[in-house]
Amino acid sequence: MKLSSDARGVYVIAPTPFHPDGRIDESSIDRMTDFFVESGVDGITVLGQLGEAPKMTHRESVGIVSRVARRVKVPIIVGVSAPGFAPMRELTQDAMEAGAAGVMIAPPNTLRTDDSIVAYYKQASEAIGADVPFVIQDYPLTFSVQMTPAVIRRIAQDNPSCVMLKHEDWPGLEKISQLRTWEREGAMRHLAILIGNNALFLDFEMERGADGANTGYAYPEMLVQLVKLIKSGERAAAHDLFDRHLPLLRYEQQPGMLGLAVRKYILKRRGAIASDAQRKPGIRLSKEAIAEIEFLIARLERNS
Amino acid sequence: MKLSSDARGVYVIAPTPFHPDGRIDESSIDRMTDFFVESGVDGITVLGQLGEAPKMTHRESVGIVSRVARRVKVPIIVGVSAPGFAPMRELTQDAMEAGAAGVMIAPPNTLRTDDSIVAYYKQASEAIGADVPFVIQDYPLTFSVQMTPAVIRRIAQDNPSCVMLKHEDWPGLEKISQLRTWEREGAMRHLAILIGNNALFLDFEMERGADGANTGYAYPEMLVQLVKLIKSGERAAAHDLFDRHLPLLRYEQQPGMLGLAVRKYILKRRGAIASDAQRKPGIRLSKEAIAEIEFLIARLERNS
Amino acid sequence: MKLSSDARGVYVIAPTPFHPDGRIDESSIDRMTDFFVESGVDGITVLGQLGEAPKMTHRESVGIVSRVARRVKVPIIVGVSAPGFAPMRELTQDAMEAGAAGVMIAPPNTLRTDDSIVAYYKQASEAIGADVPFVIQDYPLTFSVQMTPAVIRRIAQDNPSCVMLKHEDWPGLEKISQLRTWEREGAMRHLAILIGNNALFLDFEMERGADGANTGYAYPEMLVQLVKLIKSGERAAAHDLFDRHLPLLRYEQQPGMLGLAVRKYILKRRGAIASDAQRKPGIRLSKEAIAEIEFLIARLERNS
Amino acid sequence: MKLSSDARGVYVIAPTPFHPDGRIDESSIDRMTDFFVESGVDGITVLGQLGEAPKMTHRESVGIVSRVARRVKVPIIVGVSAPGFAPMRELTQDAMEAGAAGVMIAPPNTLRTDDSIVAYYKQASEAIGADVPFVIQDYPLTFSVQMTPAVIRRIAQDNPSCVMLKHEDWPGLEKISQLRTWEREGAMRHLAILIGNNALFLDFEMERGADGANTGYAYPEMLVQLVKLIKSGERAAAHDLFDRHLPLLRYEQQPGMLGLAVRKYILKRRGAIASDAQRKPGIRLSKEAIAEIEFLIARLERNS
Repeated sequence: MKLSSDARGVYVIAPTPFHPDGRIDESSIDRMTDFFVESGVDGITVLGQLGEAPKMTHRESVGIVSRVARRVKVPIIVGVSAPGFAPMRELTQDAMEAGAAGVMIAPPNTLRTDDSIVAYYKQASEAIGADVPFVIQDYPLTFSVQMTPAVIRRIAQDNPSCVMLKHEDWPGLEKISQLRTWEREGAMRHLAILIGNNALFLDFEMERGADGANTGYAYPEMLVQLVKLIKSGERAAAHDLFDRHLPLLRYEQQPGMLGLAVRKYILKRRGAIASDAQRKPGIRLSKEAIAEIEFLIARLERNS
Repeated sequence: MKLSSDARGVYVIAPTPFHPDGRIDESSIDRMTDFFVESGVDGITVLGQLGEAPKMTHRESVGIVSRVARRVKVPIIVGVSAPGFAPMRELTQDAMEAGAAGVMIAPPNTLRTDDSIVAYYKQASEAIGADVPFVIQDYPLTFSVQMTPAVIRRIAQDNPSCVMLKHEDWPGLEKISQLRTWEREGAMRHLAILIGNNALFLDFEMERGADGANTGYAYPEMLVQLVKLIKSGERAAAHDLFDRHLPLLRYEQQPGMLGLAVRKYILKRRGAIASDAQRKPGIRLSKEAIAEIEFLIARLERNS
Repeated sequence: MKLSSDARGVYVIAPTPFHPDGRIDESSIDRMTDFFVESGVDGITVLGQLGEAPKMTHRESVGIVSRVARRVKVPIIVGVSAPGFAPMRELTQDAMEAGAAGVMIAPPNTLRTDDSIVAYYKQASEAIGADVPFVIQDYPLTFSVQMTPAVIRRIAQDNPSCVMLKHEDWPGLEKISQLRTWEREGAMRHLAILIGNNALFLDFEMERGADGANTGYAYPEMLVQLVKLIKSGERAAAHDLFDRHLPLLRYEQQPGMLGLAVRKYILKRRGAIASDAQRKPGIRLSKEAIAEIEFLIARLERNS
Repeated sequence: MKLSSDARGVYVIAPTPFHPDGRIDESSIDRMTDFFVESGVDGITVLGQLGEAPKMTHRESVGIVSRVARRVKVPIIVGVSAPGFAPMRELTQDAMEAGAAGVMIAPPNTLRTDDSIVAYYKQASEAIGADVPFVIQDYPLTFSVQMTPAVIRRIAQDNPSCVMLKHEDWPGLEKISQLRTWEREGAMRHLAILIGNNALFLDFEMERGADGANTGYAYPEMLVQLVKLIKSGERAAAHDLFDRHLPLLRYEQQPGMLGLAVRKYILKRRGAIASDAQRKPGIRLSKEAIAEIEFLIARLERNS
């Protein structure tokens, strides 16, 4: 089943579990996948930035997709961002054959003009094939590429296979409002908008018109519940829930490999993976950082 | 009285109040200054990035320093970052004569190597005069310059007039720990470390060894109280206080002129300034954003 | 007399002469100005990047403009790029009063989208006043801002006071062709296009439709002659002339303060200025570099 | 035979020949390889930036290495730069098995501090294996990473398998002088220094201490002859030769895919490859550009 612009809910960003020596930990992939499904997620994204995708060989990447796809019924999105279109096409084809529902593409960090961004997605779409649904990853903090709402609209217009925006611009609330205004006015077709940036603004982003989250907080059940509360109009309960998690969520949102280290530490602590190791170049948590995380977890549990 | 490395507590980052037509609002400078002093701040920094410093002429800049300095007894730090040393020297001299206690210098965003950063601060220090205490502003998110702890140590060693680090690296907790470890080991002299980045990690940064905050949240009394609570060992109370503010604080921490718009809106609402106008190029809050801020304030007040 | 889109020929980029101790050398300003006029230039640009503009105070900047304007009859363009509009407006007003014909504005290096570049020039134009003719400086290598031809066209359409493009994109030949094609088709009004980038492609840029050069090679008489040869259809002679200078011109085109050091060394050698000192932070030529320059000059003189 | 720090002469950067539809043109690989050997090159580098390396799948990359390695006796260097170490290791192993003499590694464009650059090369060296000789690619214009001479020395000290510097910093003459001074003083071991940046400063770089060129001008026989002339002390003849080529060489040195388009056009014209097609995203020469190249070739041939 292919990804469509009707997608909604929580598509969790899956880290890649490694053994301490850097090999992929396949049994942890299974445990983690089960953990996510039991958390109630609507889909899973593998091989994103925080899935340490660039560190994997092609063979390893396809192996991860296959393993997850065989285990779950929810749709799987695969990050296929690459410095060139031939490796992007190769991974896309193998991932779709292995059972993926669609792919996610981030722009190379050299793009500087509106036209060059639009052209890039046109060429990427042609490279992977017009039949493969794709997600735009809009994450300027990491990729240094700024997409205006008008650029996103142009990408959507040019490419029928563009079905979702992973929105993680920051600040970014007005961008969601603008895209949804255009949609209401008939000036733009519907794209699913799932938000990232570690959900730091999920509360308001849902209210602005997002359809859910495409991010990887170590308590995915919170994301699931929050999205449901907002959708059912229980605003105060949604914010109460969000605010309880915010101190920890903010701690996990630290950029780069540190945020991932926090996430993996908690997932390990919760039994979802066996080791919190990152592949090189990675980061190890200091004992001070671990104490801070434990302190935040204790407070979270006491307040829940 | 000159700024020294004994500085501690809260040095609030002051915005610059404007009339809606863009002229500086001098009577609001007075009200805002009083508001800050009543909030219990230990010092005031004017003409920082979020003081819209680059938008001011030299004459206007000196006028602001003079006005604030005449009104308060707490030390005043003046942002003097400039594309060249001659304007930096000119503003420094005029600011010190007008009553400033020290100046703050951010690195130009073209610096790319350790040596070039160290050389820049050496030359800046010579340009402003070895008798003028200065603050390093370490804010990679905005300035694109990465300073390792070793680079900061070299700047401190080279320049006796370097007395403070405005720390707003992100992630940045380990950086504080490293600098304090070196200090304890006798491998580095003491610098005051006051944190910025809108206080998003103030809770833990204090525990890692920061001496206070040098930032501009619209509830400066919270920063003052938090610093006191940590210093007096009341950890749980400190975090309780911080967590109550975090949803709003996170909203105000949005980068660029949007975060400043949020801050000015609240300061106006609290009576500290007459208008929340920014000089061009500025940002206006949408009605959705205003509703979100009001919602967060209502929740904050209910939970206090 | 104000700058208009009819400008053509060579507007030389003037360095700022300093004494070895960093003070402005006013008598060298006079000698250099005379040297340029005797070289046959059609105009002079002061306070550009390679005029070390950011290193000057406001008062010094105005002093330079006044001194040059009182001495010459050719039009003077003044670089007024600044981090904010208030200092830009102040320098523009004082420069125009002192006799400038127009100003040059480079984009701040944080601009990333088409709309933000267009908006910036709109606001800058309003800030300096619609009656002040301005030049767009399009120099991505230094400013990290990419302007497509369509963006330049939008700036021209929005701002009647935009009269010239200082074109120094690299590669950039197709950009000139595109703009001139639009002009021929009636899809864009005429802008003067004067090229920069140290004239490394002046030969072909003239043939693509440039109106002249706005750059600062230490042999400005070569630029003047080359422009005339191309205009009069003497293509082979033009290229012969250009090719003789290319080894040295290439050496002077090295980016940053090194290229300027080469230029000032030669200008001093030719008697146009008394010292080749740069204000801090500056660069000193090594003895190897000086030997290389002398070698290239000897070859140039032998081949002329 | 493995690459060592005794390497010298011209290691030509080979483009990858494609059919117009984007498939690799294997028979053109053979012709081009023969053309290079007949030009007198001392080695060949495949899969560099201008070999369009990021556009290739792993299988294609290995195929290119094998094909070239089977055909020639001169050493082959393979560009293995990758966003992660696992794909870098995989390509390195397969390339070395296929007959490569060493690999070339460029830094990822996110590195910002001296330590992070040094750490990167340490980890890369461990990833590919300490027995594989590697080349540092120092090309700030393209990779946005600035390596000081001290950083290069640290990399050389840390990694015995580091044997060569591909030097294409710009300006960069003083960097060569500094490294060679340290070597003479016994403060640094010998690295082969071969220069890139399209040979724009090859004349002086050889005189500063470079051992040759590692670049891809479409007349490699000129590079070969120039290196020989300098080595044999025929300075005037070397510069005469260089200056004759400089107008065209400068045209080919335009950054990005345009420079490559020029190079491939000439190589096709000279019979070395069948098509000048680039893989998407690529660039097509305009008819104006082709006329300019033909004009430059005609002048070059007349002057030879």
